[in-house]
Amino acid sequence: MNRPDIRRLPKRANPEEAQKLLLDSVREIVLPTESVSLGECVGRVLAEDVFSVLNIPDYDKTFIDGYAINPTETKAASTSTPAAFKIVGKLFPPDYPTALRVNRGEAAYVACGAPIPQGAKATVKVEETRLHGDVVEVIREIKAGEGIIPQGDDVKEGDLLLRKGHLLRPQDVGLLASNKMTTAQVFRKPVVSIISGGDELLKQTQKSPSVIANNYALVAAGFASQLGAEPKLMGIMPDALDKVTQKISQALDASDIVVTIGGSSVGVKDFVPDAINALGKPGVVMQGVSLRPGAISGFGIVNGKPVIMLPGHIGSCIAGFYLFLAPLIGVYTGLGADSAVPQVPAVLGKAVETGPQFRFLLVNVKRGDGKLEATPVQGGSSALTTIVKSNGYTIIPPHTRKEQGKGVTVTLFNKMEMLGFE
Amino acid sequence: MNRPDIRRLPKRANPEEAQKLLLDSVREIVLPTESVSLGECVGRVLAEDVFSVLNIPDYDKTFIDGYAINPTETKAASTSTPAAFKIVGKLFPPDYPTALRVNRGEAAYVACGAPIPQGAKATVKVEETRLHGDVVEVIREIKAGEGIIPQGDDVKEGDLLLRKGHLLRPQDVGLLASNKMTTAQVFRKPVVSIISGGDELLKQTQKSPSVIANNYALVAAGFASQLGAEPKLMGIMPDALDKVTQKISQALDASDIVVTIGGSSVGVKDFVPDAINALGKPGVVMQGVSLRPGAISGFGIVNGKPVIMLPGHIGSCIAGFYLFLAPLIGVYTGLGADSAVPQVPAVLGKAVETGPQFRFLLVNVKRGDGKLEATPVQGGSSALTTIVKSNGYTIIPPHTRKEQGKGVTVTLFNKMEMLGFE
Repeated sequence: MNRPDIRRLPKRANPEEAQKLLLDSVREIVLPTESVSLGECVGRVLAEDVFSVLNIPDYDKTFIDGYAINPTETKAASTSTPAAFKIVGKLFPPDYPTALRVNRGEAAYVACGAPIPQGAKATVKVEETRLHGDVVEVIREIKAGEGIIPQGDDVKEGDLLLRKGHLLRPQDVGLLASNKMTTAQVFRKPVVSIISGGDELLKQTQKSPSVIANNYALVAAGFASQLGAEPKLMGIMPDALDKVTQKISQALDASDIVVTIGGSSVGVKDFVPDAINALGKPGVVMQGVSLRPGAISGFGIVNGKPVIMLPGHIGSCIAGFYLFLAPLIGVYTGLGADSAVPQVPAVLGKAVETGPQFRFLLVNVKRGDGKLEATPVQGGSSALTTIVKSNGYTIIPPHTRKEQGKGVTVTLFNKMEMLGFE
Repeated sequence: MNRPDIRRLPKRANPEEAQKLLLDSVREIVLPTESVSLGECVGRVLAEDVFSVLNIPDYDKTFIDGYAINPTETKAASTSTPAAFKIVGKLFPPDYPTALRVNRGEAAYVACGAPIPQGAKATVKVEETRLHGDVVEVIREIKAGEGIIPQGDDVKEGDLLLRKGHLLRPQDVGLLASNKMTTAQVFRKPVVSIISGGDELLKQTQKSPSVIANNYALVAAGFASQLGAEPKLMGIMPDALDKVTQKISQALDASDIVVTIGGSSVGVKDFVPDAINALGKPGVVMQGVSLRPGAISGFGIVNGKPVIMLPGHIGSCIAGFYLFLAPLIGVYTGLGADSAVPQVPAVLGKAVETGPQFRFLLVNVKRGDGKLEATPVQGGSSALTTIVKSNGYTIIPPHTRKEQGKGVTVTLFNKMEMLGFE
């Protein structure tokens, strides 16, 4: 039956299979890389294995403030029978390399980080000594190597420091700096263009030009940015096939991934799928997923670039975002499909029962008694406040009842949500 | 006993009390705020309560694609005895406000998000209708309100939307946009100046000017930035009292919080405490904490501004950072002392036993079988690789044995560490 009020009814795919189909279709992409100065590297992903160019530490050094001595001379030393040493010098960290030598009966003052003088085999803390003019007394037996970090103890030249695909945190960047690097080769951030539909947003924009009418695009852009992408707000597409096609075409030219919000449902003004099909092969690959909310999500591929179709309801939009866009961003950032979003084990705060579809269950995760508790968030799927009350989601299979207290894996929207824990 | 090789032996304070002393000393600070455009607001902290200026949704609207009708006319409708309606119009989201009315026996096509025509009290999905030209048949009884989100269902005008002190996530910013805001009043990011000591770094810098010798400052800056501060690398202070004093003085002028790394231990070239005392009252408030590593941490207050003294060993430096600087940044960002860092419940991956001091135990948290498992990280406290292998820490009280599998609360270094979970 050909109905003008129903343009197509989507075939509802299994969400996991739908996601796999998307990821398979970009399996061959070559990720571009760029050289970035260390100061800008936090949050970026290494595009190469990094090997150590030096030993860490680069010389035998002391990790205390005290005296460098030959420990064999402290045999049987005690408070009553201390071992005495004449102080023949002082060493500070900048004194490496040093020519100073301690002979039998001699010691050198060493500040934390200083090199070890020749002839010394241990350092003893000032607190374990007594000082009489230029003579220092050691009041216990000292073992060889005490207070010393030997050269290369931590890292040896040629060791693998950090792997390709590693997310660079502040401490990693510090390590790269200690490896005498000033830049790192990282994956370029994927550019994700976001287009919002349709005429009602344009109308709102005309009425109040300063107000951001397409605020869902703002949410999607923020989420994409938190996952490591470079979002690009492409504005609003009017409800007309030629305009939608033009907008998506512009976005394809300007980005790695294109996202549409709205305009891909079964309404008579939903032109996105036709636009995608008009723009190139294979066009729409998948539309309609057995996921509630989020059923009207889908994607196409145009000349090798993915176009993700997200529904216009915010709840469905977010479901589609995490089903398709989040793993895709993970792949494009170099982290991998599963690694762009944080996952935590939690227990359900309330029983949940699903119907014939997979359920995209919004939850709020809190710290409970030694556990994280994920409470399902009530609220309409079209209300942004429902997303505001949530910090993540879990997917429950069809025809399933999960009791309160049952373990689930929660995907947090992004790393920011860690701070929402109370 | 006056020893030239021991300038002072710190009194070892209880870490919790030391932290409380610091936070008490900045209890009266007034946090500056600023107006920031919504596009830049993610990660910032609201400095005011935000109330809704409108109802959400702002009018009765449908959340389906279908037909708006008067449900009383569908009484006893079924596939064999459908209720028939003449279609008298089509409504789309931009059509609000609409003058369209459906009378008895009439329906209007409505696209998802469209306003409800006058006289209609429900909407029915296209899938639950049959179409014959301009007549639509409804094949089941429809209840009043079906398919409709009433005005203000989600938020009513005047409702509190977001509280002062709330960390703005992408969905929150989207909500502010829907509240017709274009900017938000947020707390200004605290400027944290970081000064590194001493001569050995200067020597390294002279040897290789392009290489970042003070890489621990880079780590501290990255951590501070992840917690919401604006770090400022102030370079290296030479090992000389006048130079150290001058550097800290400059930093105090340029920032909200000053941090020194190194130069505050008990070595003979540790001039930071004297410099702080020289700069203003009360000067050094606390030096030396019963924490291993991190014992040589401390802080001063100069003319109301905190100066945090971090040890020069990276492990100790990080311990001092999380004992003093992280909660301080939490206060200054407006989030609160405990809220700048993410905390998760975990079980110990290995037994731990402490001596007479509190233990700052570096751990690596991973997802185990339905639990997070925190494995203590082995490695020297002066090795940056130890921090690289860690994603957080837990503090164990003195003279305590915690068995493997025992619950602990882990503080992750920052939100980025969520992605380190495997």
